[in-house]
Amino acid sequence: MYVGIDIGGTKIATAVVDAATGSVASDVHSIATHAEFGGVEVLQRIIGLAQHEVTQARLAGFDIAGIGVGSAGVIDPETGSILAATDIMPGWAGQPLGAALEQATGLPVQVTNDVMAHGIGEAVWGAGAEYQRVLACAVGTGIGGAIIVDGMPVEGAHHVAGHIGHVCHRLAYGMHCSCGSDSGHLEAIASGSGIHAWYEQRRLACVAQSNAGSDVSEQAEQKLAFPPAANGGQVAQFASQGNVLASQVIHDAGIALGESLAGICHIVDPDIVVISGSVTHAGEPWWQAVQQGFASSSMPSIAATRIVLGSLDATAPLLGAAYVIESYLQRCNAQV
Amino acid sequence: MYVGIDIGGTKIATAVVDAATGSVASDVHSIATHAEFGGVEVLQRIIGLAQHEVTQARLAGFDIAGIGVGSAGVIDPETGSILAATDIMPGWAGQPLGAALEQATGLPVQVTNDVMAHGIGEAVWGAGAEYQRVLACAVGTGIGGAIIVDGMPVEGAHHVAGHIGHVCHRLAYGMHCSCGSDSGHLEAIASGSGIHAWYEQRRLACVAQSNAGSDVSEQAEQKLAFPPAANGGQVAQFASQGNVLASQVIHDAGIALGESLAGICHIVDPDIVVISGSVTHAGEPWWQAVQQGFASSSMPSIAATRIVLGSLDATAPLLGAAYVIESYLQRCNAQV
Repeated sequence: MYVGIDIGGTKIATAVVDAATGSVASDVHSIATHAEFGGVEVLQRIIGLAQHEVTQARLAGFDIAGIGVGSAGVIDPETGSILAATDIMPGWAGQPLGAALEQATGLPVQVTNDVMAHGIGEAVWGAGAEYQRVLACAVGTGIGGAIIVDGMPVEGAHHVAGHIGHVCHRLAYGMHCSCGSDSGHLEAIASGSGIHAWYEQRRLACVAQSNAGSDVSEQAEQKLAFPPAANGGQVAQFASQGNVLASQVIHDAGIALGESLAGICHIVDPDIVVISGSVTHAGEPWWQAVQQGFASSSMPSIAATRIVLGSLDATAPLLGAAYVIESYLQRCNAQV
Repeated sequence: MYVGIDIGGTKIATAVVDAATGSVASDVHSIATHAEFGGVEVLQRIIGLAQHEVTQARLAGFDIAGIGVGSAGVIDPETGSILAATDIMPGWAGQPLGAALEQATGLPVQVTNDVMAHGIGEAVWGAGAEYQRVLACAVGTGIGGAIIVDGMPVEGAHHVAGHIGHVCHRLAYGMHCSCGSDSGHLEAIASGSGIHAWYEQRRLACVAQSNAGSDVSEQAEQKLAFPPAANGGQVAQFASQGNVLASQVIHDAGIALGESLAGICHIVDPDIVVISGSVTHAGEPWWQAVQQGFASSSMPSIAATRIVLGSLDATAPLLGAAYVIESYLQRCNAQV
């Protein structure tokens, strides 16, 4: 039995994971991250949550062998420290997450990137469970991914492997990416935030066009066709209600993801691609566009690669993180 | 000592390889492939060449332990048979290359894709020799690649891993790729044949434009600025002579390759990228464009990844193929 912890920019979740069955053995508890309070405060909140979870788990009769953590940011897997983090979690970079949790709980701890933990969960116990090589693809606020071979994630030379959102796509050219690049990264148009930003950009262009040289009543009518959206989810909602521009954006985002996934499959050649994250709820036209894009860009040899949706939802990172600490302890035992 | 064989669409080369030093121990012998005679005839020519090479090597006092082959096409590494091949080698698909060579020579044989063999050579004994994770990138008639980790190639689920020429790039949109896709693959504009095809397309557009609405003397003058090219090498030659259109095409091909390599590094995250192939002779502006494209599209974490030219030239596939058969025999011995 392990405690799994999932640290995101909005909330932190934890639960007891049974690694024998690959399932959550307790209720999932979660608290707000309050990332705006800064990295030191967030770390304190996580330590408190972990101590409470371990105590409660022991009271409930669970024998906890270690803690597995999936966290936002670039992680040093040796130390469990945060090497880098985006502006979503200010001050998170540099926090000694693994060491602090070990000291506070007396348990062995392994820390993994949250998208990787999610991917490992899906690869080992979810939609990829029966496959040797899994490409896990998380399409949420950003686009992340993980390559999992024989249950172990490919880390790469700089712990960057699997950052599949940062490949160029023609439709993204001109859009600014969260990583700073202006060369047209997929994430800038096909993630939740990308869909939102792209819709807004195209919407404003449409509004400007409709303002030019048409009378007021026409303008009023056309503006209604370009309603402002609060986020990517609302763009998908507009699309489902038949809005033409929103439907185009959702379609194009799906095409871009599908074409990019084909290119990524030519490089990595997985047995299966497992897609999860909030954008997977964008509707059937989005899903069809993903498959259409993949089919149009894939070579015959990989055309039959399975592209499926994840099956574990929010428990995936908790299960994946627990798998990482279990694998680590098994390697330690094997060496003794 | 091993016999290495490199099978391409134009010629077949062979030499004795000393795997202890990673060097070629004999002269390199080569014959024309005569791919137009069909796969059965090509296989017969290879068998004859291999038998001759083994005999000569033994006469010269070499103790040959096996044969390593790098061949064009998609290879089944278990059997050494050709699973698929492009139109460059008609009838090559289906040929039982490995089994036929074993039968003809009585030696153990391992067959690898030629680009992979090239990449392994550079990764193990060439420019990537001191690195754990090498992305080898061959930019010749097509664009291929290989991911080599700890000296072993990543094969993937369908033996496709490393086909880095088949990722989408905005500049390639509208160009037809050798794999059949029209979604804008890198190979269609940045390989040798792609540079040629792209130059011709842009040249004809320029000629058509200059024909429209200008007088005859102007036309004659402008046509001179858009000379037809016989191949990608000639486009590079025109560029080196100051031709504006050719220079643009070479620059754009370099940018596209560099931006794509950044995306591929985000996915695979190698320690080093080793680029080889005929297009690496396209000149300094091409090389600068590759680096410029990479810098503009790479995240800070991978920006320092080394991008270097290969150091072994034509011996790389012979050395790589020899390494594959040596590794195979070592694994066999370890199991006994």
